[in-house]
Amino acid sequence: MFCNSCYSKERLMASAIRFLSADAINKSNSGHPGMPLGMADVATILFSKFIKLSPNNPHWFDRDRFVLSAGHGSMLLYSLMYLLGYKDIGIEDIKNFRQLGAKTAGHPEYGHLDGIDMTTGPLGQGISSAVGMALAERILASKYSEDVCNHYTYVIAGDGCLMEGISEEAISLAGHLKLNKLIVFWDNNNITIDGNVTASSSTDQIKRFEANGWNTINIDGHNYRQIEKAIKKAQKSDRPTLIACKTTIGFGAPGKCGTSKCHGSPLGIEETEAMRKKLGWTSSPFEIPEGILKDWRQAGSRSEDAYHAWEKRAKAKGKEFADIISGKLPENWDKTLEELKVSAIKDQIKVATRKSSQMCLDAIVPNIPQIVGGSADLAASNLTLSKVSKTITSADYNGNNIMYGIREHAMGAIMNGLSLHGGIIPFGGTFFVFSDYMRPSIRLASLMGIRVIYVLTHDSIGVGEDGPTHQPIEHLASYRCMPNLLTFRPCDVVETAEAWQIALETDNKPSILALTRQNLPLLRTSSEENLTLKGGYILSGDAQKRQATIIATGSEVSLAMEAKACLAAEGIEVAVVSMPCCELFDAQPEPYRQEVLGSAPRIAVEAGAKFGWERYVGCDGDIIGMDGFGASGPAEELYKYFGITVEEIVDSVKNSIK
Amino acid sequence: MFCNSCYSKERLMASAIRFLSADAINKSNSGHPGMPLGMADVATILFSKFIKLSPNNPHWFDRDRFVLSAGHGSMLLYSLMYLLGYKDIGIEDIKNFRQLGAKTAGHPEYGHLDGIDMTTGPLGQGISSAVGMALAERILASKYSEDVCNHYTYVIAGDGCLMEGISEEAISLAGHLKLNKLIVFWDNNNITIDGNVTASSSTDQIKRFEANGWNTINIDGHNYRQIEKAIKKAQKSDRPTLIACKTTIGFGAPGKCGTSKCHGSPLGIEETEAMRKKLGWTSSPFEIPEGILKDWRQAGSRSEDAYHAWEKRAKAKGKEFADIISGKLPENWDKTLEELKVSAIKDQIKVATRKSSQMCLDAIVPNIPQIVGGSADLAASNLTLSKVSKTITSADYNGNNIMYGIREHAMGAIMNGLSLHGGIIPFGGTFFVFSDYMRPSIRLASLMGIRVIYVLTHDSIGVGEDGPTHQPIEHLASYRCMPNLLTFRPCDVVETAEAWQIALETDNKPSILALTRQNLPLLRTSSEENLTLKGGYILSGDAQKRQATIIATGSEVSLAMEAKACLAAEGIEVAVVSMPCCELFDAQPEPYRQEVLGSAPRIAVEAGAKFGWERYVGCDGDIIGMDGFGASGPAEELYKYFGITVEEIVDSVKNSIK
Repeated sequence: MFCNSCYSKERLMASAIRFLSADAINKSNSGHPGMPLGMADVATILFSKFIKLSPNNPHWFDRDRFVLSAGHGSMLLYSLMYLLGYKDIGIEDIKNFRQLGAKTAGHPEYGHLDGIDMTTGPLGQGISSAVGMALAERILASKYSEDVCNHYTYVIAGDGCLMEGISEEAISLAGHLKLNKLIVFWDNNNITIDGNVTASSSTDQIKRFEANGWNTINIDGHNYRQIEKAIKKAQKSDRPTLIACKTTIGFGAPGKCGTSKCHGSPLGIEETEAMRKKLGWTSSPFEIPEGILKDWRQAGSRSEDAYHAWEKRAKAKGKEFADIISGKLPENWDKTLEELKVSAIKDQIKVATRKSSQMCLDAIVPNIPQIVGGSADLAASNLTLSKVSKTITSADYNGNNIMYGIREHAMGAIMNGLSLHGGIIPFGGTFFVFSDYMRPSIRLASLMGIRVIYVLTHDSIGVGEDGPTHQPIEHLASYRCMPNLLTFRPCDVVETAEAWQIALETDNKPSILALTRQNLPLLRTSSEENLTLKGGYILSGDAQKRQATIIATGSEVSLAMEAKACLAAEGIEVAVVSMPCCELFDAQPEPYRQEVLGSAPRIAVEAGAKFGWERYVGCDGDIIGMDGFGASGPAEELYKYFGITVEEIVDSVKNSIK
Repeated sequence: MFCNSCYSKERLMASAIRFLSADAINKSNSGHPGMPLGMADVATILFSKFIKLSPNNPHWFDRDRFVLSAGHGSMLLYSLMYLLGYKDIGIEDIKNFRQLGAKTAGHPEYGHLDGIDMTTGPLGQGISSAVGMALAERILASKYSEDVCNHYTYVIAGDGCLMEGISEEAISLAGHLKLNKLIVFWDNNNITIDGNVTASSSTDQIKRFEANGWNTINIDGHNYRQIEKAIKKAQKSDRPTLIACKTTIGFGAPGKCGTSKCHGSPLGIEETEAMRKKLGWTSSPFEIPEGILKDWRQAGSRSEDAYHAWEKRAKAKGKEFADIISGKLPENWDKTLEELKVSAIKDQIKVATRKSSQMCLDAIVPNIPQIVGGSADLAASNLTLSKVSKTITSADYNGNNIMYGIREHAMGAIMNGLSLHGGIIPFGGTFFVFSDYMRPSIRLASLMGIRVIYVLTHDSIGVGEDGPTHQPIEHLASYRCMPNLLTFRPCDVVETAEAWQIALETDNKPSILALTRQNLPLLRTSSEENLTLKGGYILSGDAQKRQATIIATGSEVSLAMEAKACLAAEGIEVAVVSMPCCELFDAQPEPYRQEVLGSAPRIAVEAGAKFGWERYVGCDGDIIGMDGFGASGPAEELYKYFGITVEEIVDSVKNSIK
């Protein structure tokens, strides 16, 4: 079974993982033992002989990254963290697995424990975000030298991760960019929840990875010598490496191994006792023999000296490097943005907000070394290139623009990886409607609470001729209901700049910028205060005298302003509330919200689904928006056809104050 | 340039496509000429020599299917339809390209023209749904014989389609199922919007398709002889075939061909004139020389005899085959469902709604030959297998269950293809939270208005220990805002059966069934009327005497009923409204809605995002729901932790009536 006696120590160390995992899952009566048992040997070799980390300095910027893409195997990670000696996890945490409030959640949750490099569970996300981490490493190494950034990114992925389409997008880009320090272990156990992989797939994964420019190695995942040799070989590759590890799911559990029975259910006491006999493990649950724990703790401290040497080199790099490590923006980074706002008001700049966004990028990208942008093959439409953009290639990683290709989902996941790695603030563009393709990654960014910025242009029926497949309708509502995400829809250059300021300064949430294809007038008259920070505010009108309040966002704010002028000519006073970010408005104190919304009748206007606007206009307020999908035709005609016009707003106000 | 003079007729026929396309795009001053020009030669050979269709009988069930996966090249399809002689498209429609109300929308829209087999535009969807069409063909052929179902499915796909991850999921399953009558032409022009494909991809697509079990052929896409030979060869393959067509984007346009300049912008008059000279085309815009039009019309009528022969054979098949073609359900198909409801009430069956759903499947699948279900590797969790389920394999297509593998996105697209093909009513399961992975396909089903049923289980924090990555929060709201989609969240066996009845009878909309993991009591006391059809109704309480109305869905309806009992004990009368489908409720007449919701204070209860409930409770009503993501822990503890409890409802009612 094992290649030779040289690895007797590792065999015991692997058993420690196996029993911690099986016993914790038994105790919680919930969890996935199959993977921790199957991959314990690979993990033992990787973590005891190769991986660079420091439990005493868990946030070491140059540590190797480890992503458990098959996140259901969380007990593998928790066992490792405990055994290696991370300070924030004790045996009680292991015993508390999957209990409310425990750091040891059902799936690894970023922020719960220092050793968790990302939240995983939704399959395919881990391997794809790892591409972002490996890319971040190369970008920063080429920018600040390998003296301070020079590490591997390791992944354990299961069959599910490889079957998910996002993995194809990600490995294709990883191969293209020759991310040779990315090493993926594929837990090749031929088992999924519904049975054998071969029941639903005949794909030759080795050939597929090779088609995508990867180095591949086939090994027996329970043969320590092969594992060690494979990692050594992978580390020297000029391409990313897939190590296909032929394993037995639930290895060691005599009655259940090799079947889907041990994938997602506890082994049970009886089967675990049988495993104890089989593997010669005499300790009680949650007890690790002193010698084995010592071996693990020694493995955990292997890189202490390397850490301290790195720390010195990093300090010598000075302030910019210290800042990018801590995620701090340079001082006065937004001075140029403030200037842009002032000049936009002065010159009454009338451009599409996608263009406003590009003007912001021109203003800030030169100031912020961390920014790395990109687009999913729509750079010229999303206007994501600034005047200092330089595209990253496999020949030169020292750039600030990524050509993601037509791979929205991988873009979303890779941005998560870039952000999680640290040292980089990623933004990426696509058409707003196609953000659906990366929604699982946006959700994960929200759940992790990380700084990722989505530049989503062509944000309504204003798209025009491309028609309903390209016109977002429900998208604004569908993001506003997602927790911990900021959805901005600015109305002019000033609000766009304000949104960029907030998105960049918010380091615990991702942000969406929904931007127009079509030109919009400049509406703001002052830029002294960042009003977008309040989410919504009275843009125009007398709060006391108003007979109605029109609430609008983005391109519809100018319609509201025109309606206000028409109504004023008829002696009707209204206030226009611009609401660039509902989430920030909802977070304001009640009196402020009341002051803005007022007690006069309210009308909401947005060229999107009406759903959700009742929050501000109530059951009886009028909502001017969309009830169905869009259509193909010139944008101005569509606005008329769907009744999102100044005339409709005027009529609505008149009706509401009758 | 062209292999020899044998193809001079085809050269002219291809020119007809090129000039109709270029001139229409010039006229509308919007559109994508690059693809129609680049693929005109392939399309000419395919449509004039191979494809089986009848413009006089466009809905011929056994016609070859054609999917323009690169939907931006819509003018290729419109040109073909016009030239082949489809009755519902005239030259005026071509001239009206991309105008409001035109059948010739920016991207092909299913239902606009008889020759459009599906809506395309969002990349990767077409090739993936085509897998569903090709699978439908094999299923029906094996069920009703090749006498009546025996056709090819052809696809034109671009680089974008192949880069999207969904294509990997779909081609992997197509290869596994050996769908040998699926033939994909890859417009291999090395151009994307942002430049050369090689700037963002180094993937060897041929090798990748081979890794997925495909037959591959490499040709010059402007060489008629090679095109013809390749199609003949593909038709004989025992596997699906990729024909990689090396083409020049914008072929014929001397100044712009071969560059991204001609991808998405009109050529302009000058360049089009230069193309006229280069290709020797002397006709004015929108004029097709009589001889060439005649050749095309002859090509269009090639299969008339085959159609009539098929019609006879189909008639001989009898009523079941006629019904499945027309999408009709068998008479009394739901008698067994009605019986299930009655016995559920009698026996007070307390099961999870996912289990209720399986009981429905047991009742109906034996009655409905069209039903083909499946799951994305969660059959045992989604409970999508009925007692008569039989899994479809490459050795035996005559089944009614598809093992989709861990491929939610392809499942969504394949179900679209199964439904579009006709003869099949597809349903498919995954965890509700992972429906995000197939959201672009759900949107497309909604936009096309087709019957697809999503069985989405584990629909709230009731998921428990798997934690926030597996707990849907914003999902109900995010689907309720999507147009033309029904989102059901039933509260017991009776409502689940009612939802299944509606979903199956609604042939112009897809339906989501959001179902619990945990058991729920039986709440309905009668099943005579399908109350779910009204979307929401008073489940319990006196409409006149009520002091408050509690509105709830799914698993929270039983909490509302318990709260009602507690309140009654204190002398407070409330009504409980069960709201299994907001979309259907919103479609009821105003008086009914008022009658149900009443004028007493309203409280909404749902273990999901609060967003959107203001529609029913107004700005001031209380909403008991989620403000953030879930957590890992036992389900009952989570309900308490997040305050979704009987006590909270009772308190809320008391506060609201103060």
